[in-house]
Amino acid sequence: MKTLVICSGGLDSVSLAHITANEHQLTRLVSFDYGQRHRKEVDFAEAASRRLGVPFHLIDMRGIGAVLSGSALTDDIDVPDGHYAEETMRITVVPNRNAIMLSIGFGIAVAQGDEAVATAVHGGDHFIYPDCRPAFTRAFDAMQQAALDGYAEIRLHTPFVEHSKAEIVRQGARHGTPFAQTWSCYKGGEVHCGRCGTCVERREAFHLAGVSDPTVYADPDYWTEALAARGQS
Amino acid sequence: MKTLVICSGGLDSVSLAHITANEHQLTRLVSFDYGQRHRKEVDFAEAASRRLGVPFHLIDMRGIGAVLSGSALTDDIDVPDGHYAEETMRITVVPNRNAIMLSIGFGIAVAQGDEAVATAVHGGDHFIYPDCRPAFTRAFDAMQQAALDGYAEIRLHTPFVEHSKAEIVRQGARHGTPFAQTWSCYKGGEVHCGRCGTCVERREAFHLAGVSDPTVYADPDYWTEALAARGQS
Repeated sequence: MKTLVICSGGLDSVSLAHITANEHQLTRLVSFDYGQRHRKEVDFAEAASRRLGVPFHLIDMRGIGAVLSGSALTDDIDVPDGHYAEETMRITVVPNRNAIMLSIGFGIAVAQGDEAVATAVHGGDHFIYPDCRPAFTRAFDAMQQAALDGYAEIRLHTPFVEHSKAEIVRQGARHGTPFAQTWSCYKGGEVHCGRCGTCVERREAFHLAGVSDPTVYADPDYWTEALAARGQS
Repeated sequence: MKTLVICSGGLDSVSLAHITANEHQLTRLVSFDYGQRHRKEVDFAEAASRRLGVPFHLIDMRGIGAVLSGSALTDDIDVPDGHYAEETMRITVVPNRNAIMLSIGFGIAVAQGDEAVATAVHGGDHFIYPDCRPAFTRAFDAMQQAALDGYAEIRLHTPFVEHSKAEIVRQGARHGTPFAQTWSCYKGGEVHCGRCGTCVERREAFHLAGVSDPTVYADPDYWTEALAARGQS
């Protein structure tokens, strides 16, 4: 099945690209530039497309950044340290981001003759992000079937929607994903900071998956303290 | 209800802006630039926002134009003359356009605190465009409720979805829409050409509505010939 993958350059979506290249016919990677701080993430998405031998489409969404304001990913709000908690995650949201990215992905799929659009939304994001839940992805797929009725048969693939990030690490490792060539940190420094929500979550996922983490962290031990503070070991 | 209107500058969406300003609380007009030929349409949308005293947001989508290729609105394909027929309309489609525009509209509504997003999709477009049918708009609204669950309560308003274009002209006239300040022609000349699909449709809508058409057409009589050729009077 000819499949377009929405790929940010993060651990989840680069793993999805590798899995899709092995199990389906990967046609292209599509990435979005909202004027985020971590442009580095986009570079890793492009590197994945070169590695996998497919076109890379970077969609420039900076024009709507000013209107979609209020997000830590695009504005000058400090990114909070520590494991995700509800309030800290809320400020990292670009409003309605998944609906926007997926609808553009489906438009590209129509134009290019793809049969599926795949996204790496996963179970770990359910608590905070409604647009990562199965109720959303099912409703989105139904909406697209109505929108393209008679024009195209394109399905939404969400293989991780019921999985944890640790399970993504396990599957990604099985399909040879070079995890060092993926980017999670919200702070966008030279190396992963090791302290922000996504760094802690990334570190924890490797730990739970029992997979060696090749990532260089500026503060490699912070995550254990953060977990301890949550009452975990 | 604080309502954002998706406004192309065409007859339908400018009428919707005027009706919304009278019946609800119009907060802003949002327009999209896909690199279309008829930039003039966008100028009429901006003029409507000034007339109605609300902000105008022009979303620059030219960056995805190359990927969403194959459309007469953005490429160098000749726009066919005459009343819409299925094949001539197909080539005027930007793939998945309504899903893309509406999802961005909902993102802006979240960021700006609006309560509704209104679009001028109407019954006259049902035959060809699946994303103008009630099945699509209902599915889209359901998708957005899932996407924003717990974050925002924003509804999709589609007051024309079961109406003809003639009915839009009637309602627009009742609410004082200055129709001469709207643009339909796909050819984007100095005045409306009077021969392309949208010009013929526009001319016919005024005729059926019994409303005087203030539009200047380069070929004012072509539409009657086009209708006669269809076996209508």
